[in-house]
Formats: sequence, C-alpha cells, structure tokens
Amino acid sequence: MQKIGSVQRVCEIFRLKIHAGELSPGEKLSSTRALASDLGVSRSTVVTVYEQLVSEGYIETAHGSRARVSLNLPHPAKAHRPSLKPIPSEQRKLSAYGRRTSALKLPVTPEIKPREINFLYGAIADEDFPRLMWRKIYNQALMKRQSSLYYAAPEGAAELRSELQGYLLRARGLSCSQEQIIIVQGAQQAIDLCARLLVEPGSEVLMEEPCYLGARLNFEAMGANVSPITVDEQGLMCDQLPNVKNALVYVTPSHQFPLGSVMSISRRRELLAWAARNRCWIIEDDYDSEFRYGLKPVQTLQSLDVDGSVIYIGTFSKTLSPQLRLGYLVLPAELVKVFRQAKQLTDRHTPSPDQLVIAQLIQSGAYERHIRRVRRANETKRAVLIEAIQKFLPKRVEVEGTASGLHIVVWLEDFQIEDEPNLIARAKAIGIGIWSITPLYSAGDKLRRKKCAGLVMGYAGLTPTEIKKGVARLAQAIQQN
Amino acid sequence: MQKIGSVQRVCEIFRLKIHAGELSPGEKLSSTRALASDLGVSRSTVVTVYEQLVSEGYIETAHGSRARVSLNLPHPAKAHRPSLKPIPSEQRKLSAYGRRTSALKLPVTPEIKPREINFLYGAIADEDFPRLMWRKIYNQALMKRQSSLYYAAPEGAAELRSELQGYLLRARGLSCSQEQIIIVQGAQQAIDLCARLLVEPGSEVLMEEPCYLGARLNFEAMGANVSPITVDEQGLMCDQLPNVKNALVYVTPSHQFPLGSVMSISRRRELLAWAARNRCWIIEDDYDSEFRYGLKPVQTLQSLDVDGSVIYIGTFSKTLSPQLRLGYLVLPAELVKVFRQAKQLTDRHTPSPDQLVIAQLIQSGAYERHIRRVRRANETKRAVLIEAIQKFLPKRVEVEGTASGLHIVVWLEDFQIEDEPNLIARAKAIGIGIWSITPLYSAGDKLRRKKCAGLVMGYAGLTPTEIKKGVARLAQAIQQN
Repeated sequence: MQKIGSVQRVCEIFRLKIHAGELSPGEKLSSTRALASDLGVSRSTVVTVYEQLVSEGYIETAHGSRARVSLNLPHPAKAHRPSLKPIPSEQRKLSAYGRRTSALKLPVTPEIKPREINFLYGAIADEDFPRLMWRKIYNQALMKRQSSLYYAAPEGAAELRSELQGYLLRARGLSCSQEQIIIVQGAQQAIDLCARLLVEPGSEVLMEEPCYLGARLNFEAMGANVSPITVDEQGLMCDQLPNVKNALVYVTPSHQFPLGSVMSISRRRELLAWAARNRCWIIEDDYDSEFRYGLKPVQTLQSLDVDGSVIYIGTFSKTLSPQLRLGYLVLPAELVKVFRQAKQLTDRHTPSPDQLVIAQLIQSGAYERHIRRVRRANETKRAVLIEAIQKFLPKRVEVEGTASGLHIVVWLEDFQIEDEPNLIARAKAIGIGIWSITPLYSAGDKLRRKKCAGLVMGYAGLTPTEIKKGVARLAQAIQQN
Repeated sequence: MQKIGSVQRVCEIFRLKIHAGELSPGEKLSSTRALASDLGVSRSTVVTVYEQLVSEGYIETAHGSRARVSLNLPHPAKAHRPSLKPIPSEQRKLSAYGRRTSALKLPVTPEIKPREINFLYGAIADEDFPRLMWRKIYNQALMKRQSSLYYAAPEGAAELRSELQGYLLRARGLSCSQEQIIIVQGAQQAIDLCARLLVEPGSEVLMEEPCYLGARLNFEAMGANVSPITVDEQGLMCDQLPNVKNALVYVTPSHQFPLGSVMSISRRRELLAWAARNRCWIIEDDYDSEFRYGLKPVQTLQSLDVDGSVIYIGTFSKTLSPQLRLGYLVLPAELVKVFRQAKQLTDRHTPSPDQLVIAQLIQSGAYERHIRRVRRANETKRAVLIEAIQKFLPKRVEVEGTASGLHIVVWLEDFQIEDEPNLIARAKAIGIGIWSITPLYSAGDKLRRKKCAGLVMGYAGLTPTEIKKGVARLAQAIQQN
C-alpha cells in the first residue's frame, strides 16, 4: 500500500513549484515512471499525486499525452497564504463572550516529558488506569449490535445513571433519583453548563480563595463579577458571604482546592441557610473525595440540602483518566429540564461506548475495588512525599492539606512570592516540575495568602521512588538560592 | 461476591421503614445472621447494609450489642422529598441564556425500536460501523503507555489533526494547516462554539430555509435574530441576503439540508463576496459530503475563501457513528486562538483514545476504503428507495434531493401540510417511522415551502429489504386516507 505521507509531500512540492513559476502553465511534466524513479517513490504514488493535482486544477491530463501544468491555475492567493498569519483586512466581530474569552490568559496545558519528575497536580499514574479490565469490557460493549446507530438522549446512558445513583449512595451517602443525574464531558463541562445557565454578565459569583482556576476563568469569560471569600481550616468562611441575591457560590467542601481543608458540618449548614435566604445556587465540586485516608467522609452539601440549592459535580478524571473526559452532575429537580436542553444544544450527548464501560465496571463491583486499590497506592505516595519533605527540604517549610486528595500545598517560608518563578526555573533545569500556588489566588490578592512562596504538589502521577528522588533534587534547587 | 443491587435494595427498605416510623429510634435490629436468613440474602450483604446505614447515620452499632436505630436520625425532609417535583419555594434565577433555553421546545431524541422500520434521518446502519477494525486499533491505542495521564491540549490530538489535513486535501480539495483544525464533540459542538464566540443577543443569523434544526435552535438559544433565506436548485439565493454587517450565515453548500441541492460555484462566489463586503462569518457545514454518487465534488467554500470568512465543519457521525460525538472545525487563522481558549474553558478537550483510533484509520488508508464501501452500500439503498417509491407510492409524489447524501425529501401532493401528523400516526401504528419536513421550516413560514405534506426520509439506517418493505407499508398508511 502506498504511503499517504509521500503523496502529500510530492503534491505540495508541485504546488509550490507551480505557484513559484518554476513550472509554467502548459509545461509538460515527467512521465509517472520517470518521476517515480527520480523521487525514489513507487509509481502508484506518482499516479495518485497526478490524480490529486488534476482534481485540484493544478495539472491537466489527456489520453495518450503527458500531463502538463494547467493553463488556468487555482487562485494563488489562497494557496500562498501563510496559514496562521492574521488576515490584514478589517477584523470581523466576535461576541461579547468571544471578546472576553479572547482576552483571557489561559494556562497552557503542560506536557509531561518522559524523563522528568513532574509534581503536576491533576496528573495520575498511567499504571493506575485499569487497562486490561477496561479493554475487556469495552470490547464487549463495542460488539453489542444495535438496531441502528443514532444519537442518544442528552442526559446520558440510563445504565450509567442508574449505577451512579447506587454508587453515590454507597460512596457518598448521596441520595438522588436517576433523573437528577446528567453525564457530561468531565467536571469542566459541568461547570460550563452551570455558568451558561445560571450566570450572565454582571452576575455575582463567590469563590473560595484560592480556588480552581478552570472554574474561575470560566465564570470570568461569562462576564461574572467573581469575588474571593477566605477559607480557613474549616473551609469557606461563611460569615464573610455578602448578602447578595441570586448569586452563585462555587465550593470544594470535601477537600478545598488547593489548600485541603474539609468544610465543617456547621459551616455547611450555614452556607445552605445563606443560599436559601438569598436564593443563591451552590456548586459543590466533589472532584477527589474518593481519596480520603482514614477519615470518615463528611456528608455532602447535596445530602444536607432541602431547598434545591445544590448542584453536585463528580468526575472520573481522578479515578480512571482525565483523558476520558467523563463526569456527571446531580441537579436539583427544577434544573433537570433546562440542563438536559442545554446539553442537547451543546453537543447532543456524551459519547456512548465509554459510558457503558463505566456502568459495567460499577455494576460488577470492579470500579469500587479499583478505587480502593488506587487509594492505598496514593496513601503510600502521600506518606513518601511527606517523609521526603521532612528529610530533604529545609526546616522552614510548612505542609498543608495532607489529610486527603492527590496533592498537598508546600509553603517555603525562606522564600518570597516573587522568588517562585526563579525557583521553578531552577527546578525545571534539573528535570523537576513544580507548580506555584499563586495563579490560584485572584490577581493581586495578597491579603488572604501566606506571605511566602507556595507550591501545589501533585503526587498521584509519580511512583514512590520518583517522589523521593524528586524531592531530593528539589532540595538542591532550593539550596542553590 | 455480594451483589451490589441487593445491598441497595435492603438499605432502601430500612430507610423507608425508619422514616415511616415502622422502626423507631433506639429500636434494636435483627442480628445479621437472622436478617440474612429472613431476606434470603448472604450474611455479607447484610453486614454491608448495616455498615452503609451506620455511615449514613440511620443506625448505630456498639461492640457486643445488636445494632439499633439511631436516636439522631438524618433529616427526613430530604429522604422523603419526591425527587422530581419542583420545590415550592421561590424559584432561583436562570441566566438569560438559561431562560431562553428553558423556553425552547427541543425535539425529543427518538429511540428506534427493534422491529420498527424507521426512515429516521441521521441514523446509520449498525453493520456499517467497522467494529472489528475499530476494536483492533482501539486496543492498540489503549495499551500504549504514557509517562502519566494528564489532560490533553484543547485543539485535539496532533496525530488526528495531521491526518485530517491530508484527508481534507484528498477528499475535499481543502488545503489548510494543521493549526487551523480543532477536534470537537461532533458538529453540534462546532456549531455551539461558533454561536458562543460569534453570536450574541440581537445578532443577525441568516439560515437556509428549510434548515438543520439543531443549528437554528442553538442560535435561537443564544438570542440571535434568525432570518430564513430561500434556497432553490442552486442552493442559497444570495440575492436575497440583506446588507447587514457582522452577521453570521449558516449554510450546507455541498448538500443543502434537507432539500438536497448543491450550491453552484457562482452562488458560492457571490456568497463569499457578500460576506467579505459585510464583514460576515460563514459557517460551512459539510455534514455528509462523503456520500455523493457519481458526482464530482464541488470545491468547498473554505477553498474558495481568500478573506478568512469561512468556518468549515466536518463530522464522523455519518461515516463512523453518531454516538462517538466526533467532528472538527477548520478555522480562519484569526479565530484559531479564541476557539482553542473557548474549547479549553468548555470541556478542556475531546476524549483522547477515539481520536487516536481515527488518526490510525486514516493513516492506514482504512478510513477511506471504509467510506468507499459504505458509499456503495448507500448508493444501492438510495436506488432501492427511489424504485420502491415509484412502484408503491401514489403517482402524485415528488422526490427531491436524490443526488447525494443519506436522505431524500418526498412531497405527497395529495396531502395537505395539516395531514402530516395523522399520516405519521397511521404509519407508526403499522411499525413505520416517518418524519415531517415541517419542523425544519421557521415557525409559521409557509411562503417558501411546497403547499403539500412533505417527509424527510433517511435510508442509511435500513437494509434494502427493509426499505422496500417499509415503502410498501407506507403506501398502505397513505391509502387509508
């Protein structure tokens, strides 16, 4: 079989030569045999190239005579246009959302290099993805015949929603009906649907400070007024909530991101009462509650809510893979219809096969066994990380948020906030990836944070050996100061 | 292993009994052994049930004595709440987008029943999905180790974008750089991203009349003024385009949906000139151009565009499966950055594994062989459908849009538009699914359409035998008039 790559390459050479005038209109081309031998490609490749160029209007063929350059060439402006340079003509208009989105400075998605030890939060270990089990069940799901292939309903596969209902009850004590669950493309889409349906330009959005950047940037793109609320070791400080009506509060009560506190029951009740009084929505992002170590889980806000204020978000990004883009919403009854409609308008539905695989994993008990296994692995990693920090890092280091989750926060008391970029660059130079906590605070907000350099250190993506080695090397980078 | 289903069931029985007062606070429960025997479940099931109820706060256990109902029960209001009844308290606020979305009447996604013959447009045959090939390549892609699992870049897998660049050139004569391509969750997400970034409340959106409902409803939810423009056998009638600045035009030039005309080259040039003059955006939805029968493809608008007006949308819904939710955008250079940012805010990126499978299918040549095979199958189905219509349906029937695609339009000249619901119901009663063209016209627009009943008949989801049988039965339903 001919290589497609070489066809494209040879076509491109011809187009360039023709546009540059090296081959002029009417000029005869080599025979396919001669050209194949010249270029060291198969003759069938050349035949395909000529056919392609004929279909594009670059060359002409007639029976019995050699191909020649067309007398009537395609528009050169198009072919010559450097593809990524903005067009000089007057700019067309973006929507207000488009202009805000365009003005935002989003973090570039980092790529982890093979030999690097990267304490990137949100990464999980490749060996923690249950590949063999996934493959087996995926293959079964794939081979099931359907009467025909058509779009599915926007709320997601009934099989998965039914299994999730049971899972949420067992794992989180969360009781809901299957109808309240909508399957989405990861927690990010859950946040985005909430933002579109509940937030508009000028809306008040209240967020923990510091917080998850992907949520804050989304609300900012919607044009909301995002206000930071301080957190302490009991979570969001509810007495700082302003008395605004129709606001939206985004919280991470089971494991405050990134600082790690668990919201106390009394704060939870306080928040719910405040939301009911002010007719506000609460987003409860339960992004990593599967990973608690030796702690009894606290009841979710959703379970305590009797007023229909709480929208609960769950994800498979931490328990299976962030690349699957699968998560779910548990909605108050009155929001079910509008979220289904929005999901249908947005992308019709979440892809089907993966949903069926997860449903089957939960149904067989394999999903919960998998979580227990990965939880134990991460508990070990956490212990190794804390031990290594105590052993290698300087004394004046404070570690925060170690009780649960897949990351911790490390405060380097001998360093200023301004030292962070330098520290990160020095670590990077010796193959260590570390990540500053600063972007997770609102721009310019230095009141609510510790007055020293801070790192968010994810450990789920590394092995215990890598963690130990990584911290030891990090200590070198720090001591270079 | 214990069955999860029975744990849930037994837990629910206890909760109900406790809330109903049949078991009162402090009351001792049966021993696990006794209860297991009473209920006919394993003892380990009962142990799990009790553990679950303890964690939820319904019961208490103390070492050496029997479990008893908690003195301090969880909030009954929550547990008793009928889950889908709206909460009587004052409603919380939706955004303007939310209110518009809530007010829209979206079509319910139909489910095709096993024995039914359904001429549903958008459905494709289950046997046309290349299952074995997909499975083989998916399994290879799945087993590839990564240094760790992390989110991917918003624009989609480089492998797929690179292969699509070559594919678009070969199949559509469309020349673009890899950077201009963004992988999305099906054409619907492509449309949604365009709507969010280019349309705002009050924006002018011009659409073919009739048109694809999923696009029109999306623009309406955004608050746009959607105006219908008549189409004829040459496609959109460009002389009817108003001179509005900064508008957006949504067109299906390679196969007008649903009427089936191909936009002529002169109309294409006219549209592009109009867009450049008025600084308007054009969405070119190339939803089924893979299925042309014996026709030379007309150049895409994207290929003719030298002003950066055209946003091209392609999909894998018709060539592989609508349930995969995979499609792509080819963007003008100046829109690349803002679309990437919006995609990142929306759902971070399209799921990775399926993208790698399609990249490999294209790279090996299998994808294009697959399309040729399915094209031949659909060509046969189309011929069978047209023949059956000529044979079985009454004389006064006009068939439109047969040159390409996966559906045709059938006008029943002996029936009024008002007869459609009755006709559909009669067909349904004898196991035939047919679909009216009326929803694809703007509400109340009767000027631009034929003054008789019309059907959009999809055939890709059926076998030739089913098509013949279906049309014969449809003739019965029609003759019952």
